Amino acid sequence: MMTIEEINKLIADSMFADIGFIDANGSPSIRRVFCTWHKGVGKHLISTNTSSMHVQALLLNPSACLYFENSQVFEGVCFQGKAIVHFEKEYKEKCWKEGDEQYYPKGVTDDNYCIIEFTAENGRYYRYDGIGNITKQEMDIFDQNTEYVDNYDRLADENM
Amino acid sequence: MMTIEEINKLIADSMFADIGFIDANGSPSIRRVFCTWHKGVGKHLISTNTSSMHVQALLLNPSACLYFENSQVFEGVCFQGKAIVHFEKEYKEKCWKEGDEQYYPKGVTDDNYCIIEFTAENGRYYRYDGIGNITKQEMDIFDQNTEYVDNYDRLADENM
Repeated sequence: MMTIEEINKLIADSMFADIGFIDANGSPSIRRVFCTWHKGVGKHLISTNTSSMHVQALLLNPSACLYFENSQVFEGVCFQGKAIVHFEKEYKEKCWKEGDEQYYPKGVTDDNYCIIEFTAENGRYYRYDGIGNITKQEMDIFDQNTEYVDNYDRLADENM
Repeated sequence: MMTIEEINKLIADSMFADIGFIDANGSPSIRRVFCTWHKGVGKHLISTNTSSMHVQALLLNPSACLYFENSQVFEGVCFQGKAIVHFEKEYKEKCWKEGDEQYYPKGVTDDNYCIIEFTAENGRYYRYDGIGNITKQEMDIFDQNTEYVDNYDRLADENM
């Protein structure tokens, strides 16, 4: 069985996650996204294009899931919760990276640049040795006193 | 832009896919599954546990998506469609593998063994050089005269 510390490590060592959402027709859909900003296990930031289909769907229906997995060792965790799209300067400045101008030519205030904040309400993990649930309460306790941290530079260095 | 031949290659070279579904509470969820049985690009078979949460959800609501991706080269394709759970002997015998007894002790007729058949109704691909749609009609033409083929042994050999 996975401990919350092991779930935290799976998340912290992931460069990507899969975001699941429901489109305007009520059909489920998935996109793979860079996901390296985390506040413990329960909150995650994703910088993306406002025009993308998942952002447009999440603006209409914030119900979403975020799935982290490592197929090499047969482990994965699926969080269900809400994805809020932020256009506020504080989020956009926080996540802005050098070089992002290539995606958002107008810079940090580019209307096509936005930040998805996903907040988990429950989680379910899968590992070769067992399946189990993570409650909101367990996440809240584990995440107490944590702040948002970006692991991008560390992961990019490790993968060079 | 990806051609349908390139999409077919992405699928054929994948050991896994992510299946997206909607649970009994109406919330989206994702599971990573082995997905190596394909009939062209439009139909896919997945052998799995009847008791699993995704099967139980799909029995109530067959609306699903299937996502194939290769993060290394920044390409992915998300098919939306229907996932039907088969308990018929023809499907169960077709997909049964030597060694599956470890998961299904009662053998091919084990009630906990079932086959998900996913049929795509539309697709959307993402690659570094562009985004685009695949229609049902394009898939039907491409998949004409194809039969179900399992790539598991080939992929397992290549990854040894």
